[in-house]
Amino acid sequence: MPHFTQFDIDKMQHLYKINLINSCSGYKSANLIGTKSAQGISNVAVFSSVTHIGSSPALLGFFLRPTTVIRNTYENIKETGYFTINHIHESILIDAHHTSAKYDKSISEFDVTSLEEAYKDGYSVPFVKDAPIQMAMKYVEEYAIKANNTILLIGEIKDLYIADNLLEEDGFVNLSKANVATINGLDGYSIPSLKTRLEYQRPKAL
Amino acid sequence: MPHFTQFDIDKMQHLYKINLINSCSGYKSANLIGTKSAQGISNVAVFSSVTHIGSSPALLGFFLRPTTVIRNTYENIKETGYFTINHIHESILIDAHHTSAKYDKSISEFDVTSLEEAYKDGYSVPFVKDAPIQMAMKYVEEYAIKANNTILLIGEIKDLYIADNLLEEDGFVNLSKANVATINGLDGYSIPSLKTRLEYQRPKAL
Repeated sequence: MPHFTQFDIDKMQHLYKINLINSCSGYKSANLIGTKSAQGISNVAVFSSVTHIGSSPALLGFFLRPTTVIRNTYENIKETGYFTINHIHESILIDAHHTSAKYDKSISEFDVTSLEEAYKDGYSVPFVKDAPIQMAMKYVEEYAIKANNTILLIGEIKDLYIADNLLEEDGFVNLSKANVATINGLDGYSIPSLKTRLEYQRPKAL
Repeated sequence: MPHFTQFDIDKMQHLYKINLINSCSGYKSANLIGTKSAQGISNVAVFSSVTHIGSSPALLGFFLRPTTVIRNTYENIKETGYFTINHIHESILIDAHHTSAKYDKSISEFDVTSLEEAYKDGYSVPFVKDAPIQMAMKYVEEYAIKANNTILLIGEIKDLYIADNLLEEDGFVNLSKANVATINGLDGYSIPSLKTRLEYQRPKAL
């Protein structure tokens, strides 16, 4: 069983380290975050850190890289106060992954991929057309993470759009019916099938 | 296409709302966090919010519920400074999910399930035997999330153990070779197969 100490990890070659440590948290969400700059340029970028923070109010968060790298998504959200979250599904996998390339803020990823921007309900930020789950998000707050100079950005769900046939009677959204992707590490993609739903658990009688 | 506004979400019935909003972030990681109380009682609990925060240093974070509910995991980490993260895989799915039941702190989930605790390398906190990825984590810092009174807890990887045959030449850990689980919503489990790894992306020549 391979074993790495913190010392081993610290001295690893960069690419090996980021492949290894990005695989360690388990499967990740696969989302496209859509934003618009104050100048009106659309941006869409793949994120694998969108996480459920709470249901009442309905809050999602994601982590952004240190302020030392280009962060069009962050700057745009700060400029407009809004963003969209769109689920990556099988048919847009290649283009979705390509949005990880570092384009200048003057270039929209919608113009260099087959991803199509869509607008609805008065929002100025772009949704990703045909994404099976699309959400209009409003910026709520952010936390500067001291340990590594990243940012946790939290937004609230203002509008939620779900493709037909995914929603079950009890509110469960069956992601596998839309071939939604999950990410392993930096660049591994899977399209899971739902195996089982397990019941709400109560303590066993002891 | 079903559409819910923030107003619709706010007034939903509780169970419908938590099923819906927990499905909205996409697929989640499926981990068991192992801790030990100052009194020496082991605890193990399922978490679906473990997220990669950074590779240098190697940091993972997860969200804990408001201070108004029982939080043995949080209290134990604060008491000892350490915890373990262990990946849920297909053969322990039922028992892993059962750890979501609310047991009193005097009862170890290892005693009421088939999950076995394991100890190694001098750590006092329990690992989950046979989990394909096991990590010894040291508490680094926490953030009180004002928006909903949850806590983001961040730890650093001190020791990382990976089952044989998962690790590829470039550091990528192939989770699907160990039948690692991913969570959809509150109670849906999938065992993904790796579909593809995509290359590092550079901007297209325009």
